[in-house]
Amino acid sequence: MYTLEELVLYAKSYGFIYQGSEIYGGLANTYDYGPLGALLKNNIKSAWLKSFYVKENNVLLDSSILLNSLVWKASGHTSNFSDPLTECKSCHQRYRADKLIEEIDKTINVDTLSFKDMDEYLLSHKVKCPSCGESNFDNIKSFNMMFKTYQGVVEESANMIFLRPETAQGIFINFKNIARTSRKKIPFGVCQVGKSFRNEITPGNFIFRTREFEQMELEFFCKPHTEKKWFNYYRNKMCKFLLSLGIKKDNFKIYDHPKEALSHYSNATSDIVFNFPWGFDELWGIASRTDFDLKAHQTLSGEDLSYLDSDDNSKYIPYVVEPSLGVERLLLATLFNGLEDETLPNNDTRTVLHISPVLAPYKVAIFPLNKKEQGAHASKIFKKLSQKYSVLYDETGSIGKRYRRADAIGVPFCVTFDFETKDTSTVTIRYRDTMIQERVKISSLNRIIEKSLITKE
Amino acid sequence: MYTLEELVLYAKSYGFIYQGSEIYGGLANTYDYGPLGALLKNNIKSAWLKSFYVKENNVLLDSSILLNSLVWKASGHTSNFSDPLTECKSCHQRYRADKLIEEIDKTINVDTLSFKDMDEYLLSHKVKCPSCGESNFDNIKSFNMMFKTYQGVVEESANMIFLRPETAQGIFINFKNIARTSRKKIPFGVCQVGKSFRNEITPGNFIFRTREFEQMELEFFCKPHTEKKWFNYYRNKMCKFLLSLGIKKDNFKIYDHPKEALSHYSNATSDIVFNFPWGFDELWGIASRTDFDLKAHQTLSGEDLSYLDSDDNSKYIPYVVEPSLGVERLLLATLFNGLEDETLPNNDTRTVLHISPVLAPYKVAIFPLNKKEQGAHASKIFKKLSQKYSVLYDETGSIGKRYRRADAIGVPFCVTFDFETKDTSTVTIRYRDTMIQERVKISSLNRIIEKSLITKE
Repeated sequence: MYTLEELVLYAKSYGFIYQGSEIYGGLANTYDYGPLGALLKNNIKSAWLKSFYVKENNVLLDSSILLNSLVWKASGHTSNFSDPLTECKSCHQRYRADKLIEEIDKTINVDTLSFKDMDEYLLSHKVKCPSCGESNFDNIKSFNMMFKTYQGVVEESANMIFLRPETAQGIFINFKNIARTSRKKIPFGVCQVGKSFRNEITPGNFIFRTREFEQMELEFFCKPHTEKKWFNYYRNKMCKFLLSLGIKKDNFKIYDHPKEALSHYSNATSDIVFNFPWGFDELWGIASRTDFDLKAHQTLSGEDLSYLDSDDNSKYIPYVVEPSLGVERLLLATLFNGLEDETLPNNDTRTVLHISPVLAPYKVAIFPLNKKEQGAHASKIFKKLSQKYSVLYDETGSIGKRYRRADAIGVPFCVTFDFETKDTSTVTIRYRDTMIQERVKISSLNRIIEKSLITKE
Repeated sequence: MYTLEELVLYAKSYGFIYQGSEIYGGLANTYDYGPLGALLKNNIKSAWLKSFYVKENNVLLDSSILLNSLVWKASGHTSNFSDPLTECKSCHQRYRADKLIEEIDKTINVDTLSFKDMDEYLLSHKVKCPSCGESNFDNIKSFNMMFKTYQGVVEESANMIFLRPETAQGIFINFKNIARTSRKKIPFGVCQVGKSFRNEITPGNFIFRTREFEQMELEFFCKPHTEKKWFNYYRNKMCKFLLSLGIKKDNFKIYDHPKEALSHYSNATSDIVFNFPWGFDELWGIASRTDFDLKAHQTLSGEDLSYLDSDDNSKYIPYVVEPSLGVERLLLATLFNGLEDETLPNNDTRTVLHISPVLAPYKVAIFPLNKKEQGAHASKIFKKLSQKYSVLYDETGSIGKRYRRADAIGVPFCVTFDFETKDTSTVTIRYRDTMIQERVKISSLNRIIEKSLITKE
């Protein structure tokens, strides 16, 4: 597996991910997605939507990033969405206390520690500041992670709003509207893809934890006491989804949170953790959130958010199961999962991204062996295939070089137009993973690509 | 054409657009896109990408919303991205002075007026406050429209950042990275779709002008002195794109900005204005921006942003042509363009959304005439078609009622499974616009839908 440093370099040089605001020396912890990264992000979102929206017959929502502040009061974010902030009194560097402790002893479940517990730990274990080495931490303070801004002309508290720290609440506050206008009956889910913002004290590990990120969240509404069934259904589906995208089964595992470490609103929570270079770390979480959110919004807003079940005329506040995934985390996992520097039989090496055709930025590459001889024909087929797929056209350098470039960015099929093409209407197709080449009819390309895009979930 | 009020009601009741944070009494000028609105937004973005990214062989970018503040200094947004703010000294309501003047005299080009000119106009014309009726305006002040926030733990000026007011600058600052990693040669364009934020003093007209919105921007980089050609090319393409999506040619026209009203960085600017209920108003702008942006970033960042043209070994800072479109504006135009309450030959009425199949939230509706008899079969075909298209399944109410519901949300084809289906493998297909029905083979549905999605641009 690539190291983090190798991957950062790879991502930059092939146009997947650039440092944000790079020409101005960057802006801490921001990243811009170049031509290939933008395609990969789009493919990840499409794959998730196909699996969690289309196949499940759920519905979509696209709610605002800017919401009424009361939303965050009801959800508990205003008072509770905070990290334990401590400052080294010697060098004034600031840290998340829980992360400092976790790095020293990975067996401690920091979620169960109070601020006081953490203060005591830092003191009794003489924890050293990673920056200056002193053991001189200030008492922990609560630091709210929501970005705030002001809407309107005057910066006064009445106009203070927050950038959403999650897309989920936009779904909860629209539950009633969605249920009414979509004519959906419970159980059903609402899918949303969109940006969220968290003012993390210590973001890091490249795009793993960033202050601006994109979520793919599903809130699945179900009848009380059926939530365990749906929790297990989606927990299982998440694994199948990752496998269908070629994530190796040894590269991820499920961590079920112990009962005593669950958030107050949850009666079950699991994480899928992925084998990142720094250890297994969270890729995807699923939480059974009970009726906590809808109830909280009902109480604060005064709106009746209960649901009348026409099956048995019962009235209840639906329970919710929430699988929540970050686009960037799956992107990162996909790259670590698939990138390899391979030594070939002839002792040459190649960089190859083993990535599912579904996610591959380009589905196929078209190479005219000789630009003058086959350029026009190849270019015609390129245009035709481009109507349906994302296609790479490359006419410069030797075919070997073009193969290497295509391998490195994960193109599943390379198609060469050569001297035989004109007379036989055939081309050479070469498969990325096996490097096997075979001669096929041009007319069969469509079917070959199409077939590769069918996933077994 | 629907009035604005009728359209707002329609959009809410069918699940296109809800008031943002509605259960909390809303948050001024924010909107959430329900199941149909989210689909329509996605289809608009896909159509634009197909036309301006795929067909033009341009590249994609997905840059951060949060950028280094120097970006906005270089672009001029820090000092110039402001509106003329005036306050009624009697009732303390705040207004955009230029809009007040425009409403009184539409023949004035307010872009050419200085703050002093506007102050004088308000005074000499005794302009009345729309809220209290007094003519008592305070001197105009400049109000910067960028939302600001703080990144990191401390709210100090060094940590102050802005939410991007446009996606364009993210493209300019990445020009060098993109050109290098994509191996593209000038001329080429970079497409970006994403959220932008403007703290408008007087947003309004539903989703026409909102503080949070989504842009589809293309920055097309070309050799100096070729920009007029590309400006005309894309100006023309914009019109063809709208026509291909069924926007009626009488519903839009082009407004070419006169030379004296051009921004300092532009040598040509045109707007496509659409026939909204409040008059023709801006839908889509295109500006020839010269080398203004790249030059400004080169100067402030100290990075060389010039391009070495391998065709003639010349070195230059590329010129830029920028077509810039808001997703929500095209969505709104699409609804106004297509919505009709029609009186039928039998004096019944129907609400119908005449919308291009490419944009229609659902491409086809599947109705089993009788749930028990044809439900299983219809549901099987629904699932099959759902693999490729967005499909509506509706098994409740009379077929007539189901037609009405499908018409109202713009489903191009309704397919009914009836008593003959089982034996003949045929269904009744009914066309939304003509209401003509015909009997077709189930196996031909795919081809019919596919054909409707091919646009003539």
